[in-house]
Amino acid sequence: MSEAELIARIRELFPRTGDDAAVDGDQVFTNDMLIEDVDFTRDVPLRLIARKSLAVNLSDLAAMGAKPLYALVAIGASEWVDVGALIEEVANAARSYRIEIIGGDLSRAAKLTISVTAIGEAKQPILRSGARAGDRLYVSRPLGGSAAGLALLGADLSKLSYAEREYAESAIRRHLDPEPETELGMKLVGIATSCVDISDGLSSDVRHLCVDAGAEIMRERIPVFPGLSGNVREFVLNGGEEFALLFTSPMRESEISARVGRPVYMIGRMTKERGVRLDGEPLEPRGFDHFAAR
Amino acid sequence: MSEAELIARIRELFPRTGDDAAVDGDQVFTNDMLIEDVDFTRDVPLRLIARKSLAVNLSDLAAMGAKPLYALVAIGASEWVDVGALIEEVANAARSYRIEIIGGDLSRAAKLTISVTAIGEAKQPILRSGARAGDRLYVSRPLGGSAAGLALLGADLSKLSYAEREYAESAIRRHLDPEPETELGMKLVGIATSCVDISDGLSSDVRHLCVDAGAEIMRERIPVFPGLSGNVREFVLNGGEEFALLFTSPMRESEISARVGRPVYMIGRMTKERGVRLDGEPLEPRGFDHFAAR
Repeated sequence: MSEAELIARIRELFPRTGDDAAVDGDQVFTNDMLIEDVDFTRDVPLRLIARKSLAVNLSDLAAMGAKPLYALVAIGASEWVDVGALIEEVANAARSYRIEIIGGDLSRAAKLTISVTAIGEAKQPILRSGARAGDRLYVSRPLGGSAAGLALLGADLSKLSYAEREYAESAIRRHLDPEPETELGMKLVGIATSCVDISDGLSSDVRHLCVDAGAEIMRERIPVFPGLSGNVREFVLNGGEEFALLFTSPMRESEISARVGRPVYMIGRMTKERGVRLDGEPLEPRGFDHFAAR
Repeated sequence: MSEAELIARIRELFPRTGDDAAVDGDQVFTNDMLIEDVDFTRDVPLRLIARKSLAVNLSDLAAMGAKPLYALVAIGASEWVDVGALIEEVANAARSYRIEIIGGDLSRAAKLTISVTAIGEAKQPILRSGARAGDRLYVSRPLGGSAAGLALLGADLSKLSYAEREYAESAIRRHLDPEPETELGMKLVGIATSCVDISDGLSSDVRHLCVDAGAEIMRERIPVFPGLSGNVREFVLNGGEEFALLFTSPMRESEISARVGRPVYMIGRMTKERGVRLDGEPLEPRGFDHFAAR
């Protein structure tokens, strides 16, 4: 069974799993699991592992325009983990994200594993499927930082200039401690016709918005994470774990910015013609993909 | 930090995690994670791993008297796993338990890991804390089968007599394919003053019902799984993963059985005197315990 067949079969068996989060009445539900040596290494401080395990789920809620309320946290703790310290960090992270941990499970595991289910409230959830030809395509913040940060992990930053080191550290921070776009997501209700968070990469995730339309992206309009060097095109187009919101709206950039009180970046248009194009050329998805089942 | 301190701290940080499932309005939420080489080995058929990953969560909902509705399933798949086959088995299991899978996550992992969050509905959830001195203490079915089945896993059954083999196989089935007491749990609303599912062992889980009372258990009244041999006392008192319901009620056994349409077994009484006693002697908790955080 190919990966594409697997995903198609998952959609068929579980039709409600197709969006960032599942909707039931006013409630939205999502879950994501982080696993040692797949999603992080044990060099990463527990504080950041705890924060990211919640953040990736809150990003899914943000993409639905939902207000985060609760989370359940299942932890499989490997030998090296100070479980008491990890629990404190989960509590700190929940406090800083203003959610309540209402359930959990704790067991032993060979690799540290944190599986989080987050529950939010959305009276008008923003779906992936609402984009129409003619809508503008927006991204919520500059891209490429997370992938650049991942590439810099473990690198020797001591030979860099002061400015380069500042940039490198901010890219690493973007990767290790991503900010879910919770506030923006809630404000996009009534503005965005569709929304997804960029977890696999722009070139992959834009496809989720192409249910009833295609997309045309302008390379020069994509905002780039400050100080990015190296394979910038690759980082920006295919870098995963950005947790920026990618959304569509018929409104102008200036109007949306005024309404949400911060910049958003128009990077293209939704088109009648199907498929995704970058400056007129077909853009292939090349984002990072566990199994692309999200 | 000792295990007891850890649990106390978890209760302090996350006060809503103290019951089998968290209650929010009419809804109850629970999650449990099964991990290869901790909760099962790769010898176990994917069908049974999939079923058990749902069953342990449905058992928590049953202990609340809740009707199961939905689940979210996060899978970390190791190399040996046929992911397509596993997905089918999760779908089959959900169908047989009459719940809908509304969300999921799929990634790679060194060890097969399945984390499930189950969501149910309970207008009057049965809490662990409602038992009062004078209530009778009940168990929903004979105990010891799961622990005996675990001990028999991988044993050579060919030298057993026909009857012994039948018993051995039914104990193994009890361990590998436990039945959550969903129907009974819902019927116990209005009957049970408190309820918990036996996941760590009778001697441990009975303590969860001793919030405002003690318990006195009569050994000869505990129903024993048919055909049990070996260390029967240990299996019955301390065997985990039974997923029988342990509950309290002021009503008589015959009255409850008539109302729920099946046998239930009175095994003791809740007492004013605190602590748990078996035939008058203190009963220590010795059940299996990952971290006893449930």
